[in-house]
Amino acid sequence: MNAETMTAAFYRGNKTFAVEETQRAVPGAGEATIRVAYCGICGTDMHVFHGNMDARVGDNRVIGHEMSGVIDSVGDGVTGFTAGQKVVVRPLDPCGDCPACNAGHPHICHKLKFLGLDTHGAMQEFWTVPAHTLHVLPDDLRLDHAALIEPVAVACHDVRMSGLKEGEDVVVIGGGPIGLLVAMVARDAGGKVTISEVNEKRLAIAEKLGFETVNPIKADLVATITEKTGGKGADVVFEVSGTQPGVDAMTAVAATRGRIVMVAIHAKKPAVDMFQFFWRELQLIGARVYEPEDYEKAINVIASGGVDADTVITDVSPLADIQSAFESLDSSPDAMKSLIKVGDLS
Amino acid sequence: MNAETMTAAFYRGNKTFAVEETQRAVPGAGEATIRVAYCGICGTDMHVFHGNMDARVGDNRVIGHEMSGVIDSVGDGVTGFTAGQKVVVRPLDPCGDCPACNAGHPHICHKLKFLGLDTHGAMQEFWTVPAHTLHVLPDDLRLDHAALIEPVAVACHDVRMSGLKEGEDVVVIGGGPIGLLVAMVARDAGGKVTISEVNEKRLAIAEKLGFETVNPIKADLVATITEKTGGKGADVVFEVSGTQPGVDAMTAVAATRGRIVMVAIHAKKPAVDMFQFFWRELQLIGARVYEPEDYEKAINVIASGGVDADTVITDVSPLADIQSAFESLDSSPDAMKSLIKVGDLS
Repeated sequence: MNAETMTAAFYRGNKTFAVEETQRAVPGAGEATIRVAYCGICGTDMHVFHGNMDARVGDNRVIGHEMSGVIDSVGDGVTGFTAGQKVVVRPLDPCGDCPACNAGHPHICHKLKFLGLDTHGAMQEFWTVPAHTLHVLPDDLRLDHAALIEPVAVACHDVRMSGLKEGEDVVVIGGGPIGLLVAMVARDAGGKVTISEVNEKRLAIAEKLGFETVNPIKADLVATITEKTGGKGADVVFEVSGTQPGVDAMTAVAATRGRIVMVAIHAKKPAVDMFQFFWRELQLIGARVYEPEDYEKAINVIASGGVDADTVITDVSPLADIQSAFESLDSSPDAMKSLIKVGDLS
Repeated sequence: MNAETMTAAFYRGNKTFAVEETQRAVPGAGEATIRVAYCGICGTDMHVFHGNMDARVGDNRVIGHEMSGVIDSVGDGVTGFTAGQKVVVRPLDPCGDCPACNAGHPHICHKLKFLGLDTHGAMQEFWTVPAHTLHVLPDDLRLDHAALIEPVAVACHDVRMSGLKEGEDVVVIGGGPIGLLVAMVARDAGGKVTISEVNEKRLAIAEKLGFETVNPIKADLVATITEKTGGKGADVVFEVSGTQPGVDAMTAVAATRGRIVMVAIHAKKPAVDMFQFFWRELQLIGARVYEPEDYEKAINVIASGGVDADTVITDVSPLADIQSAFESLDSSPDAMKSLIKVGDLS
């Protein structure tokens, strides 16, 4: 590698990455170039790997957005950031002029560009991004842990949207990576959390993290929650499973006036017990990605140990091994978070 | 009728009412006896008439709860109310000790008694009720108009739960009696309201009331709302139709971060576009009956003319003709509100 080139991993379609030397981008006005330390593999990245998003990403895309790094250089007009600062990128680039942006919700912009899908992402040694996407980290935050900030920010957004108050009863339906992060952030906010999950290996991780768990195939979830809450039900429910049984459970375990947060992506339209929404004045709250305050909260939660990063991070592979890292994650549905070590910045 | 007896209409099953002389109840401690002026026929009363609620009401029940009247007498310990005051009854009698009551939501008490279904109701000349259910009316409010306060309070609750702000775009899906009341209350609160309805006679009433309307069988509802709102969609949607097409429309017409209020009773579980809840951060808000502040709001809306009572009230029949009034309403699905004139108090 010389000063103008770097190593990058290109998704080339057909479950294949090519790790190649390529030109480094120079930051333009309003941009910053980040030396990438770590980049986690997201569920969305697995969808890309499976070819489900080829129409969106094409066949020559550097993906990746769950990253941490250090500022290398900034372009003209960038203030408040300097080379050497540890940072993460909030990978959203809104249009600024649609009804959602105009209403103050740019994170769900109608024309949102997602960095690392609609543009090149973080699976490269140097990543050039709009400076408005940066969040500065505490100097002493470990950069491998910091690669969890993006998915933790999702969880922080979900929990904030729920309006969770200290002492409330919480059920998280689905104990995969996002479900566990939601559970940890909800516990950090004072929630009394039970996780419902059918995969025994995921249940074991949830229990290792200190959570009460129910396998709804083996036990009566509704009866368990009813008994645990003195007949009240869960004040807050997070539906993270994306399944019809999860949707059935979300209304059944909720307390009167309970708030249900829809975290999962339901590709099919599930049948929903609308009568229960009416009868018990339930609320359903859709929640997608994050806003700046969720990133700040996520940085604090990681820094304070509210998320057990060492348990969540189950694998770290060098960028040269990205192909085998994706293949390994693809064959381990109970794995948690796999990181790619993109640059040597620890 | 002598001082101890009165006329009452008993539901005797099999689509039959019997109008008979019966004993007047004397108000006990904490109770008040009301001389009933008018009592509207609610959709729930029609369900009783059809025999769908026999298990709940039995075959010797005086039904009716959309009423107005004048206090005749009060029992021991009742303060703040005196004979001669015009009143309406908020027909909810909560248990006071279930999780919903303990959480401050007695209107959706787990063991709620609904007066006029679980107890005798207002289709009798003198109705004895717990005094905590009374709301006093302005002296100059017409008692026929006041019989609309209960259903208007439903609408006020729906609109309050929506968080509607002045100038927001509103779609009401379903233009029956409750849908029109919701539309009028939403307009009174400053909403820009469009009503979606398939029944041409109901559409004609909606237009007479000054609303923009769409018949979604004849026109593209989503395109109409999209154009009307500059591509934004409706800030607030009320699903009052209780149908699968209504549920399909509710997510399709909603703006990003739109609030959808579930007013209808869905006996079957409809398929719901959960992806849209996630993608556009929609919210679904269940709303049932009313709280005291909704009654006070409803009284003000009726008194100020925010609801066009004369257009909504399409029939008035004496108590002696209750059988034909129910039969007539049953054969006129496009009728609006039919009142029974129970006592001569105008």
